Parts: sequence; structure tokens; C-alpha cells
Amino acid sequence: MSFSPLIRQLIDALRILPGVGQKTAQRMALHLLERDRSGGLRLAQALSQAMEGVGYCRECRALSEEELCPQCADPRREDGLLCVVEGPLDVFAIEQTGFRGRYFVLKGHLSPLDGLGPEAIGIPELLTRIEHGAFEEVIIATNPTVEGEATAHYIAQILGPKCLTVTRIAHGVPLGGELELVDGGTLTHALAGRKPIAL
Amino acid sequence: MSFSPLIRQLIDALRILPGVGQKTAQRMALHLLERDRSGGLRLAQALSQAMEGVGYCRECRALSEEELCPQCADPRREDGLLCVVEGPLDVFAIEQTGFRGRYFVLKGHLSPLDGLGPEAIGIPELLTRIEHGAFEEVIIATNPTVEGEATAHYIAQILGPKCLTVTRIAHGVPLGGELELVDGGTLTHALAGRKPIAL
Ligand SMILES: [Zn+2]
Ligand SMILES: [Zn+2]
Repeated sequence: MSFSPLIRQLIDALRILPGVGQKTAQRMALHLLERDRSGGLRLAQALSQAMEGVGYCRECRALSEEELCPQCADPRREDGLLCVVEGPLDVFAIEQTGFRGRYFVLKGHLSPLDGLGPEAIGIPELLTRIEHGAFEEVIIATNPTVEGEATAHYIAQILGPKCLTVTRIAHGVPLGGELELVDGGTLTHALAGRKPIAL
Repeated sequence: MSFSPLIRQLIDALRILPGVGQKTAQRMALHLLERDRSGGLRLAQALSQAMEGVGYCRECRALSEEELCPQCADPRREDGLLCVVEGPLDVFAIEQTGFRGRYFVLKGHLSPLDGLGPEAIGIPELLTRIEHGAFEEVIIATNPTVEGEATAHYIAQILGPKCLTVTRIAHGVPLGGELELVDGGTLTHALAGRKPIAL
């Protein structure tokens, strides 16, 4: 059987979504065509607006279509505390612990085997952010994985000479896991138990 | 935490997809924004083209943006055999058995409690199709569920006076299941073992 060309094109395009294989893409395409065309059109518009309009926050490098993301634009947050994370979903996880300092969002972690060095993950921008800010403490909340630990250690080393307190979230978070999947209670403890990085 | 408005709008729009909840929608949105913007734009275009362009095949009522779907447009198929199914994914399943007759795609099955009678599921169009065709046999391949059986029986009754052979796929298919989830081998046997419907 062949679907008609536009349906085939839609099924192929849906497969770029993470976790969506051929069967799921077929079901999604037919569901939209048979039951929710206006939803499908709304999704099309939301996609093109987001893909074309969303850039990066000037301060924290989180995804945002405004120059400052909602967190950086909020004047009531603590300006002395900076939390460094690997990605935007981590901001979401940390926010749920009640943390109300500032953020910096790396593009993942150092991964020399994949050619991802300090420039690739945004370390120069992190240093600029810290120079222009008035931070007393930098909390490194990269993932509790081997790569996340190495990235944390690297950042602690380059921030060492800067007269800042550099801390790492406590190992209440399970080793080998992904930060964004940790429950809020565990993460609250991990944040409260943060300690200086031993160089 | 709040995502910026365009990201929030994208996450909400992704949730119309079947099986996609809040967490999955967040992951999909951030994946596209961070790693595949051109894929996201392609998906936006494929969606709007399909939602606006796809209608129904004039002959079989399958989804198609052309007047005739690929199956109906193919001159090499058997014109004496018509297979009636509940939905477009069933055509896909039947094709995989090697069936090369024609199709008619109902809009689901009869469901009096939901107010879905013969008109709602396309029975008048099925009768028109049969009158304009030269079919010797109509194979009813609705789902092997209570509703699918009732729909098959209803169709057999109204086709009874028309001097056609009306058959039902054999109960090799598991009762209570959905046709599109059955493996190809089972479905091949079910199709081969089809028999006249006893009225
Ligand atoms: Zn920001
Ligand atoms: Zn057709």
C-alpha cells in the first residue's frame, strides 16, 4: 500500500520527533487528518513560529524569543547566586526545588571524543556572564554522570582563581542518571547539601 | 520556571498528538529547537500542506489529496473484489497480505450508543461504490470486535438482495483485537479462510 504523497510526506516529517518510529508516525498523521485538522494547523503554526522566532537569552543562553528569558528578566531573583546546568529542562527541574537565583545554560557537557570542547558547550559565554555579574557563588548542577562530573571539575578549575565560591550539588542525586528525571525532593536535598569542589 | 511564550505555545500544540503528554511534548519541543530546526520547519510545512490539501478518494473514501488514491488509480488491480475496512491503517495491514483487489474505507464501525449509524460511517457511499462497480465479491474486513462484527452483519444484510458474494475474513484474527495490530501471517490465513456470512 502507498499513502498519497502528502500523507507520506507528513509521516516522514513526524519521524524527526524523538521517540517516534514509523508506526507511531502513521497513527499521528491519520489521527490529525481524520480527527483534528484544526489542531494540526495550530501545531504547524506553532512549529514555524518557534523554529523561526526562538533564539537564546542574552544572559543565561536559555532558549527564548525575547532578549531576556523569564528568569533573567525577573528583578526579584537573587543576583549573587548562579546555577550552571547542561540544558533547558534542567532549569525546569531546579526551579521546582524553590531555587530563586540566576542560571546559565550550557550546551550539554564536555565530550572530547565527540569533539565537544569548552567553546562548543559555551564556557566562554559562561565566563563573560560571570565577569559581568556580581555572583558570590556558582553552583554547578551538571548531570551526575561521568561527563557531567568532568565538566563540573573543569569549570571549578577555571573559576578557581576568580575569588568565587564554586559549589557542586550534593550526591543525593543518583549517579549515572539524568538530572531532569530526578524527583523534586531528592533534588532539593542535593541542592541544600552542595559543597565546595576539591581541586 | 516558565518557558518563553513561543516555546510554551509549541509544547501545548504538540500535546494534541496521540500519546504525547506534557513531559514528552517538552522533550520534543526542546529537541527540535536545540538540534533540528530545519526538521521542525519541514514538519510545519508538511502539516499545513496535509491538513489543507488532503481530502478523500472519490472511489474508496480513503484519505488522499488526489481524486483517486494510489490503490484506486492502479489499473492492474482486480476489479471484481472489494474489501471493506474500518479505517486507513487497515488498508495498510490488508495490503501486506498480498491482497490486490479494491477497497472501501468506512469511517469506523456502527455505534448506536454514540449516535453513529449507517450514514455516519459511510454506508450510503459504500452502496454507491458497489452499484457503480463490477464486483463479484465483497470481503468485509471490519475489526474482529463486537462492533466490527455487528457492522459486518449489517452490511451483509443490506447487500443480501444484490446477487453478490459477501464474505467475512475468517476468525484467524484474535477476537477483541484491532485489525491493524495483527501480524501479516495471521491476517493472510484469515483472508484465505473467508466464508459467506450466514444471515
Ligand atoms: Zn535568561
Ligand atoms: Zn481510493
